[in-house]
Amino acid sequence: AAEGPAVATQPTAGSSPFNTLLVSTKDNITTICFNRPEKKNAITVEMYNEIIKALEQAGKDESVITVITGSGDFFCSGNDLTNFTKIPEGGISKMAKDAGELLRAYVQAFIDFPKPLIAVVNGPAVGVSVTLLGLFDIIYATEKATFHTPFSQLGQSPEGCSSYTFPKMMGNAKASEVLLFNKKLTATQACAQGLVTEVFPDSSFQTEVATRLKAYAKLPRNSLALSKQLVRGTEKERLYKVNDQEVERLVERWQSDECMQAIMGFFQSKAKL
Amino acid sequence: AAEGPAVATQPTAGSSPFNTLLVSTKDNITTICFNRPEKKNAITVEMYNEIIKALEQAGKDESVITVITGSGDFFCSGNDLTNFTKIPEGGISKMAKDAGELLRAYVQAFIDFPKPLIAVVNGPAVGVSVTLLGLFDIIYATEKATFHTPFSQLGQSPEGCSSYTFPKMMGNAKASEVLLFNKKLTATQACAQGLVTEVFPDSSFQTEVATRLKAYAKLPRNSLALSKQLVRGTEKERLYKVNDQEVERLVERWQSDECMQAIMGFFQSKAKL
Amino acid sequence: AAEGPAVATQPTAGSSPFNTLLVSTKDNITTICFNRPEKKNAITVEMYNEIIKALEQAGKDESVITVITGSGDFFCSGNDLTNFTKIPEGGISKMAKDAGELLRAYVQAFIDFPKPLIAVVNGPAVGVSVTLLGLFDIIYATEKATFHTPFSQLGQSPEGCSSYTFPKMMGNAKASEVLLFNKKLTATQACAQGLVTEVFPDSSFQTEVATRLKAYAKLPRNSLALSKQLVRGTEKERLYKVNDQEVERLVERWQSDECMQAIMGFFQSKAKL
Repeated sequence: AAEGPAVATQPTAGSSPFNTLLVSTKDNITTICFNRPEKKNAITVEMYNEIIKALEQAGKDESVITVITGSGDFFCSGNDLTNFTKIPEGGISKMAKDAGELLRAYVQAFIDFPKPLIAVVNGPAVGVSVTLLGLFDIIYATEKATFHTPFSQLGQSPEGCSSYTFPKMMGNAKASEVLLFNKKLTATQACAQGLVTEVFPDSSFQTEVATRLKAYAKLPRNSLALSKQLVRGTEKERLYKVNDQEVERLVERWQSDECMQAIMGFFQSKAKL
Repeated sequence: AAEGPAVATQPTAGSSPFNTLLVSTKDNITTICFNRPEKKNAITVEMYNEIIKALEQAGKDESVITVITGSGDFFCSGNDLTNFTKIPEGGISKMAKDAGELLRAYVQAFIDFPKPLIAVVNGPAVGVSVTLLGLFDIIYATEKATFHTPFSQLGQSPEGCSSYTFPKMMGNAKASEVLLFNKKLTATQACAQGLVTEVFPDSSFQTEVATRLKAYAKLPRNSLALSKQLVRGTEKERLYKVNDQEVERLVERWQSDECMQAIMGFFQSKAKL
Repeated sequence: AAEGPAVATQPTAGSSPFNTLLVSTKDNITTICFNRPEKKNAITVEMYNEIIKALEQAGKDESVITVITGSGDFFCSGNDLTNFTKIPEGGISKMAKDAGELLRAYVQAFIDFPKPLIAVVNGPAVGVSVTLLGLFDIIYATEKATFHTPFSQLGQSPEGCSSYTFPKMMGNAKASEVLLFNKKLTATQACAQGLVTEVFPDSSFQTEVATRLKAYAKLPRNSLALSKQLVRGTEKERLYKVNDQEVERLVERWQSDECMQAIMGFFQSKAKL
């Protein structure tokens, strides 16, 4: 798919077809920007679907690299937990199953993305926005970024293929702190563990990253896409299977008492503020 | 198995059913302590069997996490080489085969352990007590700990799934020094290579680790167990196969001239002291 | 194969059967030295074939370890691009196919090598001489060494199983910089990423490495070979498959416009010097 020179329609500023994202293509770079800064870019059901759609378009457009970043102070605060407060007619069981299908499709869009995918982590990242970094090719972070996956605090379990990618990149001894025991990593720690490619001072973050991206976008398009697919190809079947297993476990978790109590506790503590 | 609330009988101090271990459960933490300090906690045949049994019980009891540590100055000096001096009626071949079956069952007890497993490495670790760390979830070490696997010095070959877990966590370039060329790692080196989660000053080791363990033991039990099983599940079949191959090779090695000469040399050099 | 005590014929200095290599065996160490210093040890078709042959002999000889190094200031500048200027009768398609078969056999000789294989990186390493380091057991480097794989600059894609070994050892976030975006690593960076075992000051490089090699060569031969085969065995099938996929992709790449233009650009820029 990345081979063809097909040129996608480029949304111009102001006419974006997305409600929760800003998407633009310029100088061979497609940028997908999470755009719910007032909610720390927490991902709603609509936003999951829009990101899947934006990735599908970026995979086919004429860009050489695709960049994901956040607007405002946060990169992304993860799954919007209000997603769990809209119980559909089918009850909790139906809600959990639907959420599982959406998550599976969301993660698969990253597994299948055919070009170099670069995260520009402009601030704190939480939950699924952290775990999915294991499926990116390059991760640049400001020194102000943090990386937090409080799964067990919320009675949940890892997703985004992190149960495979995190032990692979950092070893089980370090990955367990993050995946099981809710350890929040600083940008420097995340870089030492292989989750982040490079950390920059916040004052020069955007300009230094822009310089690198500009250089990358001038490289031969097909060579880059095919090289990325080669690297990913060696573990694609594995990643599909891991995604399935993680989703299956989460669908169970979401219906467990442990998880419901933990999420209720989250909203109660917020209500007290 | 980790789902049920089954409560195991808790041995009280003084009535332990184990000869070589101290096992206790308190505040959601089951602790298995190697208890042959006069022999640097070297593992005899009886002790292998007792650890397997203690792990089986800990996997089913009501604890949230399980901790393994050593009494005295050593964590564990590995396989007690006197195990090789009791030649049974079937001769060396029978001895090697029996030792292989015991090792296979011992390693499998760690592969299958269903809850977070935490090593508190209170001093030097040797041989199989080092290699098995690749199957733990968290490894805390005092700065006085060292990690040594002198396989080729003893004419032997790697076990404990280390031929897979060590290259996975530290890359082949670093793993080969340890697995092939007998390099002894300091705690700091082991931490840099991903074998150890965190290193502590010896003076505050026990108190700092206790604080972390206490916090972990308050997290949702099922969420932790299921998350750990998810992480391990992605490579369980692989680990069984690696265990089989390592045991098969060692059974050959134990019957080789190289190995016998190396072990005789070990006892001769000890006798001279 | 490594079990037998078969002693290979040892070429004495002056009567080497190789045109592009110096090969010698002494004190249980077989050394294969790239010997085209005037061309920075760039690998010609003849040299690929000679290295395959030298590895085959070293695998069967009486040595305990095998060492690969370079003569002169470079370790190896990678594939000699003049290999691409001799278009055979069958045209570019035939040339690409032949080059692919040679590369596949070359990489397989490293996958299959049955004893500890040690790289002594005496200076800059480029292209396939970098990627293949993922198949060595120990990599010692002088501080003056650099590691550069400019695949996408040349319109090409990764080989030497690096699309698998590099992400495995350093994580995708760091591997992508090297494999996709042409980042040149210093020796210190390569060591931090797990590509290099240890870095030495240039002034003491040769003597410090010689001390280590001498000690390794005194260890039990079979124990070392069998341990190495055990470590490699856990991923051998995977490595064959990765090698096949990388070669297939490169054969396509070599016939692409992107690649031809990039290689012509390389020669034009050289011609201007």
